[in-house]
Amino acid sequence: MRPKLTLKQIARELDVSISTVSKALKDSPEIGEDTKQKIKAFAKLYNYKPNNIALSLKNRKTKTIGIIIPEIVHYFFTTVISGVEQVANEKGYNVIVCLSNNSFDREVLNLDLLANGSTDGFILSLAKETMQKEDYHHLTEVINQGMPVVLFDRVVDEVHCDKVIIDDIIGAKKAVEHLIETGCKKIGILTTVDYVSVGKLRTRGYIEALEENDYPVDEDLILKIEDMENSEKEIGEFLKTRDVDGLFAVNEQFAVSAIGALRRQGRNVPEDVSVVGFTDGELSKNFIPSLTTVSQHGTRMGAEAAHLLIDKLERKPDEVESYKTVIVETSLVRRESTKN
Amino acid sequence: MRPKLTLKQIARELDVSISTVSKALKDSPEIGEDTKQKIKAFAKLYNYKPNNIALSLKNRKTKTIGIIIPEIVHYFFTTVISGVEQVANEKGYNVIVCLSNNSFDREVLNLDLLANGSTDGFILSLAKETMQKEDYHHLTEVINQGMPVVLFDRVVDEVHCDKVIIDDIIGAKKAVEHLIETGCKKIGILTTVDYVSVGKLRTRGYIEALEENDYPVDEDLILKIEDMENSEKEIGEFLKTRDVDGLFAVNEQFAVSAIGALRRQGRNVPEDVSVVGFTDGELSKNFIPSLTTVSQHGTRMGAEAAHLLIDKLERKPDEVESYKTVIVETSLVRRESTKN
Repeated sequence: MRPKLTLKQIARELDVSISTVSKALKDSPEIGEDTKQKIKAFAKLYNYKPNNIALSLKNRKTKTIGIIIPEIVHYFFTTVISGVEQVANEKGYNVIVCLSNNSFDREVLNLDLLANGSTDGFILSLAKETMQKEDYHHLTEVINQGMPVVLFDRVVDEVHCDKVIIDDIIGAKKAVEHLIETGCKKIGILTTVDYVSVGKLRTRGYIEALEENDYPVDEDLILKIEDMENSEKEIGEFLKTRDVDGLFAVNEQFAVSAIGALRRQGRNVPEDVSVVGFTDGELSKNFIPSLTTVSQHGTRMGAEAAHLLIDKLERKPDEVESYKTVIVETSLVRRESTKN
Repeated sequence: MRPKLTLKQIARELDVSISTVSKALKDSPEIGEDTKQKIKAFAKLYNYKPNNIALSLKNRKTKTIGIIIPEIVHYFFTTVISGVEQVANEKGYNVIVCLSNNSFDREVLNLDLLANGSTDGFILSLAKETMQKEDYHHLTEVINQGMPVVLFDRVVDEVHCDKVIIDDIIGAKKAVEHLIETGCKKIGILTTVDYVSVGKLRTRGYIEALEENDYPVDEDLILKIEDMENSEKEIGEFLKTRDVDGLFAVNEQFAVSAIGALRRQGRNVPEDVSVVGFTDGELSKNFIPSLTTVSQHGTRMGAEAAHLLIDKLERKPDEVESYKTVIVETSLVRRESTKN
């Protein structure tokens, strides 16, 4: 018998993309008949077994949940995993984690790997590249075959399934309103470029909060950072020429970079400038001054996602299928980087 | 047919530990004949299929590596995963991660889950509880059946396999020697209780460095912290009554807790007390003052572990089996929390 091939090997051998192989084997109308036949014949010759999820779901329960996340060296995602673990273990489920490293191909490969009889369902946050490509066939296929999927944090309307998100706009508004309430008059924002969806939403929340409180929106006080590697330098330059007394940073990293820069410029936090961050990690808790921040509650998001998934897995066959979107509320954690 | 049971369910039904079930099914001489027969009969009745690793190894290569780590919300472990991923993906392997949450039972269950045809081999760091119990039957069993295992960071002599470690003693000596070179005369250590092997080794390095430099070793300057939850309070109390001018903390968390406590007591870092940490995470880089620390190079450890494992997986059948221990060197990263 010839050796068994993987999706990736087939793609390499035939010099087509992983996505094309994946779609062809699933008989997608997007792929031409010729290509489909070639790929199918090759796969058959080399003994590639495409997933038959429906069959495997019928035959056995693995009691295992798969998580696919874009990055691992990232506090928020690790807290989500931890939340999924807690609920899953309580309910007698195992958890397996795979990383997409923000690559579309790896996301497709991981889904293929885990859907192949190792797991009963998925909890997933989309890779950056998948969102850029807007190609979700791998997910819709799995869902159509009857495998439950829960998307969290990075979600899209195109995929119909349960979702867990936080309201970034409301979170950002809480941050800016806290600055207003504690007496700040000139409030700047350190944010990301607009194609990063959470940055865009948080910027919108900042603008809404200002407008609702009759504060002027000054474009000159909005810094959109493109290059994360050089964010520290950019923030330093920006602050040198801005006479702000309040700052909202859309992540923890921007907030501590700002405090460092302000200190070097002889401005004290919070006496001269109040600073609020987003995401409540180790850095916010332990920094001096400790950071006032909008907490995303990753653990709770993971727990909600696990509950949604397990509910679907243990649903009675005659129950009507419906999808929920759970919004996990953010909360403002007040610490030393803002005034009382 | 009766429903298929898991290891965990058998243990619960028969009111014995997971470890007992696991050992009984593997015919371990540690378990009495009566118990063994009872467990085997029950497992058979309920259609439990124990792993047959040797068979699954012969029949197929999954091209998948399993990683089992004790904790996920932990910067060091996430960097190791990231290092394994890089090498594994280059070589055409997938990576699956499971967490033991420092529980022996979960480690056994995860190994059972992943060895059951999902992976070709393992990279693992031992759970705290496994080290306390000194029970490694699950690992030796997997290894004896021919599945390669690489242990990293938390390793033990009892398990014969490839290992990747850092030299904790040398790392700790580098930290303490740096304190001595920069003029500290009375150097304390914030460490963990001795059954945590890395804490024990780092404490030994601290003592060796003092002795080699003709400094007295004062038991009164050694704080062994048992309860991580209350470490901040314990460190504060300890420092109140110790007139140190140098501190070596065996992790990042202890280091920043110490700096916070010193500041509240009116002592400046590094002017009054120099502080060195261990593990180079986001906290060390961004703290003010930024932390001088011993870097563990988690990414490199992960990469080394992946190379060792893949070498074993791709070994020719006639090659002689031998085990290697790779020591990844630590390095001292000098920053603002110590004097020049």
